[in-house]
Amino acid sequence: VTTTWLPVPPDSPFGIANLPYGAVEWPGHQRPRVAVPIGDQVLDLAGALERIDGDLAFLVRGPSLDHLLAAGPDGWAALRATLVHLLSDDRHREVVEPALLPRDRVRPVLPFTVADYVDFYSSEQHATNVGRIFRPDSPPLPPNWKHLPIGYHGRAGTIAVSGTDVVRPCGQRKPPDAATPTYGPSVRLDIEAEVGFVVGTPSVVGSPVAAADWRQHVFGVLLVNDWSARDIQAWEYVPLGPFLGKSFLTSVSPWVVPLAALEDAFVDPPAQDPEPLDYLRPAGPGLALDLEVRLNGHVVSRPPAAGLYWTAAQQLAHLTVNGASLRTGDLYASGTVSGDRRDQRGSLIELTWNGTEPVELPGGETRGFLADGDTVTISATAPGPDGTRIGFGEVTGTVRPAR
Amino acid sequence: VTTTWLPVPPDSPFGIANLPYGAVEWPGHQRPRVAVPIGDQVLDLAGALERIDGDLAFLVRGPSLDHLLAAGPDGWAALRATLVHLLSDDRHREVVEPALLPRDRVRPVLPFTVADYVDFYSSEQHATNVGRIFRPDSPPLPPNWKHLPIGYHGRAGTIAVSGTDVVRPCGQRKPPDAATPTYGPSVRLDIEAEVGFVVGTPSVVGSPVAAADWRQHVFGVLLVNDWSARDIQAWEYVPLGPFLGKSFLTSVSPWVVPLAALEDAFVDPPAQDPEPLDYLRPAGPGLALDLEVRLNGHVVSRPPAAGLYWTAAQQLAHLTVNGASLRTGDLYASGTVSGDRRDQRGSLIELTWNGTEPVELPGGETRGFLADGDTVTISATAPGPDGTRIGFGEVTGTVRPAR
Repeated sequence: VTTTWLPVPPDSPFGIANLPYGAVEWPGHQRPRVAVPIGDQVLDLAGALERIDGDLAFLVRGPSLDHLLAAGPDGWAALRATLVHLLSDDRHREVVEPALLPRDRVRPVLPFTVADYVDFYSSEQHATNVGRIFRPDSPPLPPNWKHLPIGYHGRAGTIAVSGTDVVRPCGQRKPPDAATPTYGPSVRLDIEAEVGFVVGTPSVVGSPVAAADWRQHVFGVLLVNDWSARDIQAWEYVPLGPFLGKSFLTSVSPWVVPLAALEDAFVDPPAQDPEPLDYLRPAGPGLALDLEVRLNGHVVSRPPAAGLYWTAAQQLAHLTVNGASLRTGDLYASGTVSGDRRDQRGSLIELTWNGTEPVELPGGETRGFLADGDTVTISATAPGPDGTRIGFGEVTGTVRPAR
Repeated sequence: VTTTWLPVPPDSPFGIANLPYGAVEWPGHQRPRVAVPIGDQVLDLAGALERIDGDLAFLVRGPSLDHLLAAGPDGWAALRATLVHLLSDDRHREVVEPALLPRDRVRPVLPFTVADYVDFYSSEQHATNVGRIFRPDSPPLPPNWKHLPIGYHGRAGTIAVSGTDVVRPCGQRKPPDAATPTYGPSVRLDIEAEVGFVVGTPSVVGSPVAAADWRQHVFGVLLVNDWSARDIQAWEYVPLGPFLGKSFLTSVSPWVVPLAALEDAFVDPPAQDPEPLDYLRPAGPGLALDLEVRLNGHVVSRPPAAGLYWTAAQQLAHLTVNGASLRTGDLYASGTVSGDRRDQRGSLIELTWNGTEPVELPGGETRGFLADGDTVTISATAPGPDGTRIGFGEVTGTVRPAR
């Protein structure tokens, strides 16, 4: 068991087995700094490494994780090994302590430059629920669903860090019984609790990435809230897919948990029937992240990511099977994580069955969809070594009235 | 009439009324240079401006148009006025001539960093044709088509400059009569001839861009070939839209024609019935670009962009109506341009009616879809002042066998 000389409570979600990376505004510096939360503190990486290892310091000297992401698996492993060494051997106290601050003294920013953003649709329970709601006269799963991980491109430019307000979007929507669409603020504003995968190593156009090679490219994992305006989405999405119902904002958690911290969270994914085509094999591991969705502080759902039908490896292999290249900073997300039970559904449209079965909040308020002023917070933990938990922090946002 | 002291043939597509911008590899320089084609030559902008106007030179000193795009309408106008002045007054010969090269001495690169890429579906004829082919049992236009410009996000990372080979993509496809999908090279590789709009001025998240303000944000126009694998697309696109059928490569022409060069190409767009919602008005002008599609040198189609149902202004207003922000370098494209006549269709799936009516090439060869080794070239011109034509150059690519 690796231990640290720092005062980290044993049940901290940011113990020495975690060491996720983010970028934060740091007092006294004009540009954001790459930082690692440890216990209730946060470590300025460039500050700590500058005098220790110039090569590694180079990876974290910029205002984001971009250089680190591009370094590839050897660079990722070297940096993590050095961090573990610094934090576990108290002879480095002199180097580390001046680079620490209490975590509440820094403000996270978007941790990396998002290149392309792809959102998948990998939860069978979610796809089934949404199919029943949106297409009640058809089979709930489309015929391709069990053959390939369905996905589409989202808007990279409106991905924002946790804490960013979500302005209620306006747009066109047409209730099924109306003759023509009208313009106005969305009245069915929703969330989607998702797991996001951050690509570090790029690939060459024309060369697919094999499913078995996913860890050569994927650096780590964060949480995603894919805010969704269901009324706008329902009217627009046939035949070219979701667009304005999603593109107004997508929020991400500030800390990217490296795959190296998730060895104890790897689990066998659900059995797949029919057996996928060769390029989607081996499936690779599922990830036992336990998500929690809070609405105004009240837990409304606990979606289990371990049950996702399609894995991170399969999503990446599918994304590139046509020769599409990867860039450093590509982000792909799982799609809404929903489990079998009602209290495991990762979106309000499922939790409230399209608003017909409102969620009750303490004090008697109910919600079909989000009201102005509502705050949604998604957090997650995963199994770590020796019974510890790996924390993902949270992605939060508050709904502001339409402008 | 503005004339130039340079030896430019009066019918050149790159006369002084055009002055489009690109980035090219320039002999003796390590990084690409921002350049303007004029007649059969090309002008190194930073080279010409460095001693004349340091502020303007700053806009074009980088390896791409990124700084120029970000400068906004005042910067765009100032640069264009200075260029017209330099090229029309032969007292500037001494400054200009050392910065010229024959155009065949330079190699264009991707002219700007693509932020987000959105592809619309704005040709009524194209949408009708594709609807008939893909959904023969439904009305050809979906119910939302005349109420909003349907669009979706494409992959920004696989946008490439004209001349880039297209490797035949592999993926899943399932013929309607097959029980299960198979993996393999696309056997229905197609093109889409489109007009693309390049965003310069960014906008703030939560603040829609009014249709009337489109010229404050859009810098210019280029040509797009949205290569499409119809068999992959047909199997994957329900319910979340096209993905791998498109994301392997999208080619663009090297020169961005500024809107200032297109005053004579602005035309009234087709009448819209039903009248669009307020946020989609005023419609703004259509653009009378005459496209030409050549397959292995043989003209197969001449799509007229003037007939597009939705305008550039409407597409931009729709794209941002939900508060989605614009970034410098955003690219949005019209979707396939098709006219009323068969020889005006901008894709092979329409020209050959899904392969059932092959196109005949000189020498007796026929094509339903693209064969390995085929070269597709899309070019366009638009009306300029005094009967001249504004040239867009071309976007070309050759099909290479699947790997």
